[in-house]
Amino acid sequence: MTITQTTAALEGLTVEDKAGLTSGASFWRTKAVTGIPSVMLTDGPHGLRKQREGGDHLGIGDSVPATCFPPAVAIGSSWDVELAERLGAALGVESSIEDVAVILGPGVNIKRSPLCGRNFEYLSEDPIVSGVLGTGLVRGIQSQGVGASLKHFAANNQEHDRMRASSDVDPRPLREIYLRGFQRVVEDAQPYTVMCSYNRINGVFASEDPWLLTSVLRDEWGFEGLVVSDWGAVNDRIAALKAGLDLEMPGNGGQTDAKLVAAVASGDLDEQVLDASAQRIATLATRWAATPRVEGPLDVDAHHALAREAAARSIVLLKNDSVLPLAPDAKIAVIGAFAEKPRYQGAGSSMIHPTRLDDALTAIRAVVPDASYSAGFGLSADVDPAETARLREEAVAAASTADVAVVCAGLPARLESEGYDRDDIDLPAEQLAVIDAVVAANPRTVVVLSNGSVVALPFAERVPAIVEAWLLGQAGGGATADVLFGAVNPSGKLAETIPHRLEDTPAFLNFPGEEGHVRYGEGLFVGYRWYDARRMDVAFPFGHGLSYTTFAYGDASAEVDADGDVEVSLSVTNTGDRAGREVVQVYTSLPGSTVQRAPRELKAFASVELEAGESREVVLTVRRADLAYWHVPADRWVVEGGSYLVEVGASSRDLRSSVPVVVEGDVVRLPLTRESSLGEVFAHPVAGPMVQAAMAGMAQMMEGAASIMPEGVSMEKMMASFPIGRIGMMADGQISPEMIDGLIAAANAPQM
Amino acid sequence: MTITQTTAALEGLTVEDKAGLTSGASFWRTKAVTGIPSVMLTDGPHGLRKQREGGDHLGIGDSVPATCFPPAVAIGSSWDVELAERLGAALGVESSIEDVAVILGPGVNIKRSPLCGRNFEYLSEDPIVSGVLGTGLVRGIQSQGVGASLKHFAANNQEHDRMRASSDVDPRPLREIYLRGFQRVVEDAQPYTVMCSYNRINGVFASEDPWLLTSVLRDEWGFEGLVVSDWGAVNDRIAALKAGLDLEMPGNGGQTDAKLVAAVASGDLDEQVLDASAQRIATLATRWAATPRVEGPLDVDAHHALAREAAARSIVLLKNDSVLPLAPDAKIAVIGAFAEKPRYQGAGSSMIHPTRLDDALTAIRAVVPDASYSAGFGLSADVDPAETARLREEAVAAASTADVAVVCAGLPARLESEGYDRDDIDLPAEQLAVIDAVVAANPRTVVVLSNGSVVALPFAERVPAIVEAWLLGQAGGGATADVLFGAVNPSGKLAETIPHRLEDTPAFLNFPGEEGHVRYGEGLFVGYRWYDARRMDVAFPFGHGLSYTTFAYGDASAEVDADGDVEVSLSVTNTGDRAGREVVQVYTSLPGSTVQRAPRELKAFASVELEAGESREVVLTVRRADLAYWHVPADRWVVEGGSYLVEVGASSRDLRSSVPVVVEGDVVRLPLTRESSLGEVFAHPVAGPMVQAAMAGMAQMMEGAASIMPEGVSMEKMMASFPIGRIGMMADGQISPEMIDGLIAAANAPQM
Repeated sequence: MTITQTTAALEGLTVEDKAGLTSGASFWRTKAVTGIPSVMLTDGPHGLRKQREGGDHLGIGDSVPATCFPPAVAIGSSWDVELAERLGAALGVESSIEDVAVILGPGVNIKRSPLCGRNFEYLSEDPIVSGVLGTGLVRGIQSQGVGASLKHFAANNQEHDRMRASSDVDPRPLREIYLRGFQRVVEDAQPYTVMCSYNRINGVFASEDPWLLTSVLRDEWGFEGLVVSDWGAVNDRIAALKAGLDLEMPGNGGQTDAKLVAAVASGDLDEQVLDASAQRIATLATRWAATPRVEGPLDVDAHHALAREAAARSIVLLKNDSVLPLAPDAKIAVIGAFAEKPRYQGAGSSMIHPTRLDDALTAIRAVVPDASYSAGFGLSADVDPAETARLREEAVAAASTADVAVVCAGLPARLESEGYDRDDIDLPAEQLAVIDAVVAANPRTVVVLSNGSVVALPFAERVPAIVEAWLLGQAGGGATADVLFGAVNPSGKLAETIPHRLEDTPAFLNFPGEEGHVRYGEGLFVGYRWYDARRMDVAFPFGHGLSYTTFAYGDASAEVDADGDVEVSLSVTNTGDRAGREVVQVYTSLPGSTVQRAPRELKAFASVELEAGESREVVLTVRRADLAYWHVPADRWVVEGGSYLVEVGASSRDLRSSVPVVVEGDVVRLPLTRESSLGEVFAHPVAGPMVQAAMAGMAQMMEGAASIMPEGVSMEKMMASFPIGRIGMMADGQISPEMIDGLIAAANAPQM
Repeated sequence: MTITQTTAALEGLTVEDKAGLTSGASFWRTKAVTGIPSVMLTDGPHGLRKQREGGDHLGIGDSVPATCFPPAVAIGSSWDVELAERLGAALGVESSIEDVAVILGPGVNIKRSPLCGRNFEYLSEDPIVSGVLGTGLVRGIQSQGVGASLKHFAANNQEHDRMRASSDVDPRPLREIYLRGFQRVVEDAQPYTVMCSYNRINGVFASEDPWLLTSVLRDEWGFEGLVVSDWGAVNDRIAALKAGLDLEMPGNGGQTDAKLVAAVASGDLDEQVLDASAQRIATLATRWAATPRVEGPLDVDAHHALAREAAARSIVLLKNDSVLPLAPDAKIAVIGAFAEKPRYQGAGSSMIHPTRLDDALTAIRAVVPDASYSAGFGLSADVDPAETARLREEAVAAASTADVAVVCAGLPARLESEGYDRDDIDLPAEQLAVIDAVVAANPRTVVVLSNGSVVALPFAERVPAIVEAWLLGQAGGGATADVLFGAVNPSGKLAETIPHRLEDTPAFLNFPGEEGHVRYGEGLFVGYRWYDARRMDVAFPFGHGLSYTTFAYGDASAEVDADGDVEVSLSVTNTGDRAGREVVQVYTSLPGSTVQRAPRELKAFASVELEAGESREVVLTVRRADLAYWHVPADRWVVEGGSYLVEVGASSRDLRSSVPVVVEGDVVRLPLTRESSLGEVFAHPVAGPMVQAAMAGMAQMMEGAASIMPEGVSMEKMMASFPIGRIGMMADGQISPEMIDGLIAAANAPQM
């Protein structure tokens, strides 16, 4: 859909009107200007957070009830694009009923460090998972005529000093890791809006970066919607508008509108730039006015059921030594305050006022009415040692007389919030102590985790079953019971690695930076790319997730199709005794690549539902574009030619089949310059022979020099990096710069 | 010594004369210009490499014999500044005898990765070790009136693409790690020359970087000598001269001199800039002309003896499970080609033509005449499996009938050279196989290593004694025997960490970069700083080295002296039965520092000689300047106040005593700006109360918002990073930018 179609909407508007259009009327609304209605944009991303009129100006309190779907941390683990689209559609429906034109989400920032306070709002450490699921969410939202707002654009991977800090990222990681997911969503789903982030990127505020907001987003990716600031992200309104930021939010009483008007008057700001932005807002607003609303009231039950289904598909069964699923006649000791007081979403701007709220204890008791419950631990930061000991003893007593103990552990809400990061990845000590004591008392213990970002699992060896239930939204309690009893066969997979220790993580020592800068020093090696490249052990690898059934993978085959994409085919068989879903993952690598690459990179995945015993041929497409790396000197995407290794697996470290496929490369020919090295010049088809001849005398010298070097020391290797422009020094001035320039010109001349 | 004293030397010189002075006459000489003699600069750093006239123009072949002292990799392990100074003096003597005005060294670049091909020419992974020993070398050289050339300035930590690649380093690591050693040598020893490196730093060629060559080197550090290019490092002669590069080497037949003349004529180059550089060359040359030469001939025996002494003090005894020292009546099987064909220096420009050459086999047989010898392995890259097996069997046979086996393993010369880096840190497979087979045949096995940069030691658990003998120069064979038999008690300590695997090393994945850039992504965490911060196990830690005796450390005390330096005192006792030397190391940390720091940083060390049973009070000075970190916003060194932890140890992981010391901090007061965060503003003595009052209404709002947040979620923490300049957005426009500016002005006004 082309969403910036030219309209006559701006006709007759004054500069003041147009300037007014490009900033908010209030915290959540655009301005109404002659003929152009005001529209509302309001928080997501995993539910509608619409503040009632007259709410506080922090934009936080008093929102209308809405379905709290599972936050992104859970959806990421579903690896289920169809589910994401259904969730998006549900968000669109709720927005439409409430007359909200744009819901602010999804967030597709990469989980660079487990410490990021907002990781629960993001999908994955991998750009393909983020981009594919983000696309599903946007398509779903926009299927209802409501606009999505793809955020936070870009390289916003921490909360610490988020409104000032510069994310200092080199071109390849910026393109291949941090922008790749955004690019995919923009190109595949054309969101109505993109929200620029608070931070700087390489020193420039995202809100005033013409490279980011115009060159990359519009010119390269073809974005047609409008760019809205994160709330308060505008630093310099005029610079922002010039860079491509269309809408400043929230409103500020017209302060910056006046600046725009003055800038147009003084000639500092081209009115056409203002017109383009005003037009985009007008387009969004008039289109929303013309969009039929979904009629209310909201079907609360249906959306709650969807939330439960989504939650269940997002749970990751990390480990299961024959403890799960629980028998409905088992004597169960439920332990842990989270069973009763669920942690189901993170704190901050995404905090939904849910229509209802399930807890795991009630859901478990719906199956096993006499399941016991003990809190096990308190959730307050103030730990009373005596009370802690009492709670632990109570839990141990309950566990020791039960068939199985279910410990609902997790991160207290205070540790995970927008606005600040975590200091560590540890569960509170009192919870770890309860887990240790319970499993010692009853070896048939299941730990169920509620957390928005990964935690260290020091008990992983000792506890036979671990269920990673993330933050699951308002229906997570029921979903947890569904998985525990096998009503739903778990099928989520980790969209982020669970490391052993914080010290093992890629951004450790480079997070969250200081003095206004955070160096992305790990480069391309984010998440599993790091652990694989450094050959490190992890607690649970990216892509991992168990099922109550088992799946067998046939041999994969791979071939390049007419579009240049790689089609990967294999058969997958459910070899167990119950229906289940397997997420099949395709990774690629290019052995012998001329550039640095991770040992394997996820390129495609598919969600396959199989009845017990059923076998199915699965075909996955690796897009040619996704094989490309960012070629820095050429400043563009380039597919390197060669024999790629395609690996198909059930996780990044459970690879079941691999097959090579030869891919033709893109042609890149950079001109020779004085800085070209002798190695590059010798390899050049035209210049090589010329220089060989010109340097015949020198070659003799080199031979002489080489003869006194130790055996095997390579003079050629030593010389290969010598720039052609400086070889005069070795020729005692007999090779002039003019001779070298002539050679370069000849080499660069168009060939006959 | 002031070495840029104003002279009348330039009087009467033409622009052409002066331009001519600032580039070489030939590969190794400056030009003679009326009244100013030509002088010779020639390679070091660990011996004099003076090419005979008429040598090749690559500057490699046919040099006059000179003493090959131990390369820097060995001297670094001596931690002996007095030894370094004696070696420097010997280098000065040899240079003077040969009429060489400047010897090109020492190299004090940091060993960032064990892969750097030129690590054998560098001292340490730590800037204090590099700076202190570099100072000793420069002082020694210059004690003979010969100039040193401190190189390669700066951030030249790899050979790959060395003439083009940009070392992309953030300010703190650049200052605190990569420049700190240079700074110390310049400030303490005022070398006559500094040699700029080939590479770029953050995009700018070192040879044309005014910040590096003038602002930092001269203005900040007070350098008074001349800056010479590395041979061929000049990219743009005029830019280089303007930046502060005085002397281009080698000569290029006057090509670039003519450019300078033209630039002066056109006004592009200020003649005074040219004068300043010409003056520095004239000063060097006229001073050399006036310096009395050391009379020859060289006392070859005395210098060989010094080389042997230095080599023995540089050997590091890594491990010794009661095998060493060897008894003079032992039946010894010497194994390994390096025993007979020593590897004693690296390849490239530093390759000395030695006056003589000792090997370990001969030296061992001087003690134990009937020691057997078997080559064990070949040194060629072409491995013949049958021959390899035969050599190994021969070695095993010899080992199995001996009391002790001494395996002389190491890196073949082809793997370590200027001009290219290593691909891995492995010893050749055939050597590892021999070591394994020999220790299996005879558990009393000693491995002696010859290598210029660290190698992985997969056999470290199985082999009872390991001697790291590095590259030891021409007298290394005798020195090795001295240590093996206990004629010299080993006392070297590792100046670089030996990791378990290449994948563990800090720069792995960021070395050697690609496409002209190498990102120093590990930041401050180079060497032991990385392993300590990430709590990683290593094979042998920084600072480690055993002795045949033992040392006990008393409790350390620490106090700040009148100059602000920290004096650390403790008693050290030789608790064994033979004389020995201990290198006492002082590390500091600042718990609770407001900036990122390594868990501990070396700040001082002392070499203590103790007879058996002797005890001595050791006093070490930690300079206040060495406690400083580089304060990025203030752009200067700042000592943070607080209670520093002073740790004293025999290695970075064998800490024997620790004591806190309170250090007063430097005052840094940065003005408030619109970007100052609410957290910073609230903490400000003037602005804090004003803003608190102004925001009273908002505080109420925040309370309201906080009340709906989960328990413990900190609104204050969330808001702390909000820039004061943008709080208007939360006040619905009621706080104007002018109000904020007024507040900032009031806060920044000089206080009564």
